[in-house]
This record gives sequence, structure tokens and C-alpha cells, in this order.
Amino acid sequence: MTEPSTRTELSTLGEFGLIDRLASRIHCVVPGTVKGIGDDSAVIDPEGLHQVVTTDMLVERVHFDLGYVPLRHLGYKSIVVNLSDVYAMNATPKQVVVGLALSNRFPVEAVDELYEGMLLACRHYGVDLVGGDTTSSQSGLVISVTAIGAVAKDQVVYRSGARENDLLVVSGDLGGAYMGLQILEREKAVFQDSGAQPDLEGHDYILERQLKPEARRDIIDLLKKLDVRPTSMIDVSDGLASEALHIARSSGLGVRIHDEKLPIDPATYATARDFGLDPTTCALNGGEDYELLFTIAQADHERIKGNPSLTIIGHMTDAAAGQVLVDKQGGIHALRAQGWDALLGR
Amino acid sequence: MTEPSTRTELSTLGEFGLIDRLASRIHCVVPGTVKGIGDDSAVIDPEGLHQVVTTDMLVERVHFDLGYVPLRHLGYKSIVVNLSDVYAMNATPKQVVVGLALSNRFPVEAVDELYEGMLLACRHYGVDLVGGDTTSSQSGLVISVTAIGAVAKDQVVYRSGARENDLLVVSGDLGGAYMGLQILEREKAVFQDSGAQPDLEGHDYILERQLKPEARRDIIDLLKKLDVRPTSMIDVSDGLASEALHIARSSGLGVRIHDEKLPIDPATYATARDFGLDPTTCALNGGEDYELLFTIAQADHERIKGNPSLTIIGHMTDAAAGQVLVDKQGGIHALRAQGWDALLGR
Repeated sequence: MTEPSTRTELSTLGEFGLIDRLASRIHCVVPGTVKGIGDDSAVIDPEGLHQVVTTDMLVERVHFDLGYVPLRHLGYKSIVVNLSDVYAMNATPKQVVVGLALSNRFPVEAVDELYEGMLLACRHYGVDLVGGDTTSSQSGLVISVTAIGAVAKDQVVYRSGARENDLLVVSGDLGGAYMGLQILEREKAVFQDSGAQPDLEGHDYILERQLKPEARRDIIDLLKKLDVRPTSMIDVSDGLASEALHIARSSGLGVRIHDEKLPIDPATYATARDFGLDPTTCALNGGEDYELLFTIAQADHERIKGNPSLTIIGHMTDAAAGQVLVDKQGGIHALRAQGWDALLGR
Repeated sequence: MTEPSTRTELSTLGEFGLIDRLASRIHCVVPGTVKGIGDDSAVIDPEGLHQVVTTDMLVERVHFDLGYVPLRHLGYKSIVVNLSDVYAMNATPKQVVVGLALSNRFPVEAVDELYEGMLLACRHYGVDLVGGDTTSSQSGLVISVTAIGAVAKDQVVYRSGARENDLLVVSGDLGGAYMGLQILEREKAVFQDSGAQPDLEGHDYILERQLKPEARRDIIDLLKKLDVRPTSMIDVSDGLASEALHIARSSGLGVRIHDEKLPIDPATYATARDFGLDPTTCALNGGEDYELLFTIAQADHERIKGNPSLTIIGHMTDAAAGQVLVDKQGGIHALRAQGWDALLGR
């Protein structure tokens, strides 16, 4: 963690002092936010829409390493990963609440940086930070974010809505965040061994995928513009294979993915090769891509065809056909989730 | 922590296995819950009402000590403290989402116990557990709960609505949870020094106040029945003095509290004396009472007078008169918040 130039102990502010300090920087702009920080609860006007709610925890040394993750990026990412879950319901994020447990090794300036990143994400996605809880911890930093979104009742898209023969489509490209993490871990190890400054040159794209991911609001907007309503949708946080299995199982179907169709950025591909890894495996199981994986009716094929942001990677089958991956030689393999499993600490 | 008789490692289940295990026990009953656990987000139908949102984090060794807190009680309390914040808005809690970070020293059975307590609280208060995130931590247990409630737009009660001359009223009694904690800490110290079994005999009331507090739903119902609408309200989590100051400052007023009016249970009083503590100080600054502190118009005095669950402890004054405590001799002291401050680790 880079030490800020001045260091103010958290204890000089206390919890209420810290809340006042943060609240003074936070200005609610979402029309549905009736009351933000400053009472027992925030108050929201749903304006006739359904509400969606999702929560995610980021734990130091499990989800992030402050040795190479700037606090501002961490704050930004902690908001984005939750918004991604809101978009995956075809909803629009509106508010977030933030829980923070941190030890006294963090000065006030560190908390400021973390919140700066969070508020930057909030501004970027048009979301209000309406509440939270800040407390001490005896060891590391734990960030808990709950995001609330709004969606018309008849526009909600679940994981379970896929139908047989629907096309399976993914946005963007896969495996980049995972390869970015490999670079960061390698350079950290080199630094610890030899004191050599990290060499991150030429890895901008995959580092940004890891350190400052974006939620695919643009894809939700694009699908609306194309008048395509996904039949099912999920965000890719644990790896494509894991998410495709979620859609298939929730929908009671099989799925058939063609590995040569998986969208992989050249930078991801080259770095995987450098590390002696199979790029396809990285794309299938890397995780933290925060792309959207969804199914559409065959009839919508024409509308999305050729769009550079969308790739058709397979289709849904009946359950009996199983959940499979087809390789370049036509070999068929059971699709397995080997993605990030936070409970195993991998 | 009492070890369950069998021990199943969390890693044998993995995150998804654990989610499936928990989800199978959770049945949503709240009409507004459209979709609970099992998608990227939960989906809620606000049914024409405003929504309130609040979040709280409980951190091992800061907020609880598993040396004397049973996991089931901890689960129960983690839900209750959030529901208390919802009632304090004059709202009805409807849904909760739960974030859990835990190290592999916790077996599956421990997680089961924690959730049993949470689900017991959910059933008791008519709330659905609709989502969550479970992850590993490198050290202690961190529980993050976000509660969502519903309230008619014109029924929301803020901290800021008190008016000059309003009566200040508190439910139940104060200081018990704090004295319960003192007993638990004393017996833990005795056990560590001498191995003697804890002597908790005769302290049932204050131990329950600490270990298994309830949120005052009954007071919200009572006030409705009495047709009394509080002008402002807050729940007493950080100590009465701190909360009274919140109401006064948010409302731009002074407040005058008479210390002889503070409701203190005889068990709390006696235990405080045993510990050489001033019962009034415990009532003012003890914290974790989860009572409701509110203001009502003088005109409503007759409606609440003599109700055993409600005590008038003072009234609101103009800001110039300050925020003060009047002692039995008529001496006037500045009201100070010396309650629990989680950031100072007290």
C-alpha cells in the first residue's frame, strides 16, 4: 500500500467524525433517493418500479492485495462488481450502501482514497451512495457493498429463462482480468525477491481489466436499442464455464459451447502463452471479467449479428444433451466450473 | 466457541455447495419478495410503498467474542440490530441480505448454527432472507447485514423532525445489555485465570439483553394503536446520550434530559452497583439497548401517559438552551456521547 503523504489517525475522528467527513462529500442526484446518509436508514422512492438487491464482500488477502491494488481502484471496483449484478437482471442501479471494517493501520487519508474511488464509480454510473457502516477490524480491510436497482416488472431477466435452441452470447472478451492478476502477482514476487521495480509495460489492457473493471451498462443499452430482450442473463464474475452452467441448470437445459468462438483479446492470448497457460482455459475459468452472458431467441440472430461487442459462443440444448464444450477438433467435453471459488481461497 | 459434535470442512462444500445448502432451508413468505436467493440479485415488489435500507457490520473481536457468544444468538442478533434501524424509520422490515466472511476454522456446522439464528429472527419478524455473499477470510468472522423495509411515503419518521417542547420518550429500559457484557467479560476472565466454570446464575435478564436483543416492533405497533405519530425517532444502539444528541442536532434543537427519569431495570441497577459503576452512566452510555428513542407533541402526552413500556425522560428545547442532563439536585451538565465507538475499538 502506498502511504499517503500525511497520516491522520482514524481515532482522532471517531466513527461519527468519519461519517460527517464522508457525508459532506456525498451529494445525492438520483430522483428516487428521498434520504441518503444521516438517519437510521436511507429512504427510497421506487417510482412504480420493482427493486433489485445484491450484495458482495471484498476481503483483504482473499479478493485483493493492497501490495499492488491502489485503494482508489479498489473502491471503484467494489462498487462496479455490485452494479454488474444489477445490470445482469436487466435493471438500472440506483443506490448503494457500503459497509467498511478496517484496522487502525489505515489512516483517514486511506479511507478518503477508498471513498474517492467509490464515489467516482457512483458518479460514472449515476448511482447514489445512501448509507453505510464503518467499524474497526482487528486485522484486514473488509468491504461490503449492497446495490439497489430498479426495473419495470415485465423487464426483469432471470438466469432461468433460457429456452432450447436459444443462442448463447457473451459481451466483450474473456480471461483478461485473470491474466492481469498473473502479471501483478509475478511482479510482486519479483519485487519481494530482488527489490526490482515492477515491469508492467505493455500490459495496460489486462491490468485495467483486473484493477479497474467496468460494468456493462452499455450492453444493456445496446440490447434495448437493438430491441433484443435476452431470455436469460448472468454476469461473468466466477468464470464463463461456471456462469454458463448456472444458466443451463437454472433453466433446466443443456448447453453447447464452442471453444474456438470464445472471445479472447490478443493481449490476453499472448500473456497466457508467456505464462505457459492455455488461453481457452483462462477464458473459461479465469473469472472477474464482469461481462454479461445471456441467451437470445434464434429469431434475434440478425439483430446482433456482426456487432463487435457481442459474440455468439454456443446455444442451449435439451437437458439430456448435457452441458458440454466442443473443441476445435469436434471433441466433446463436459463443461466444468473451475473458476474462482472464494471459499477455497483459490 | 463451542465445537459442534461433527465437523465438516467448508472446502468440501465450496461456495456454491454452501449456497445450495442454505437456499434449501430458506422459504420466502413476504408477499413483496418476487425472487429470493438464486440469481444475480433478489427482486422486490415495493407494492406502492417507499423502501428504507440500512446496513450493519459485526466484526469478531470488535462486536462479539465467540468465547461466550453462541453462534445461534450471534446470527439472531445480527438480523435484529438491522431491523431495529428499520423500525426506527417507522417502517416494516421485509427483506435482508447477508454477507459473510469466515475463515476455514469454521466448519459447515458452525455456519448452519449462525444461519439458524438468522432464520429464526427472520421468521420471528416476518422477514425474508433474499440474498447474500459468502466468502473466506484470513482471520475472523465478519457479518454484514443489509435490511430493507417498507413504509407509506407520509409515515416515514426521521431524526430531524423534533420540534421545540416535544416530549422525549424512550421504550423499555436502558443499560442492561452493557451490564450483561460486563458479566460475560468478568466470567471469561475468571475462566481464563482459574478454569472455573462461568457463574451466570441470576443474570438472565441482562444476559439476554446482551446476547439476544429484540427490536421493538411492538412499540411501533403500540404507537399506531395509540394513534401517536412520533415527530422524530432513532434506535438506541450507541447509548442514549449519543442518540438524544443525534435527534437534537438533526432537528436543530436543544434537549433536556432528567437523569432520575431514566428507566433502569433493578437487575441492571444492582449489577452496576456490584461492579462499582454508576447505573445512570451505564444507562446513558452503555449502548446496544435497541430501544426506540422518539419525540412526540405535548398534545399526545395523555395518550402515552402511564404506559409501562414508555418513559418520558425529558423534552426538546430551543438550540440556545443546549443539550443538557439535569441531575437529581437540579445541577445541569452538558450531555456528552461517550457511547460505544466502534472505530476506537471501545
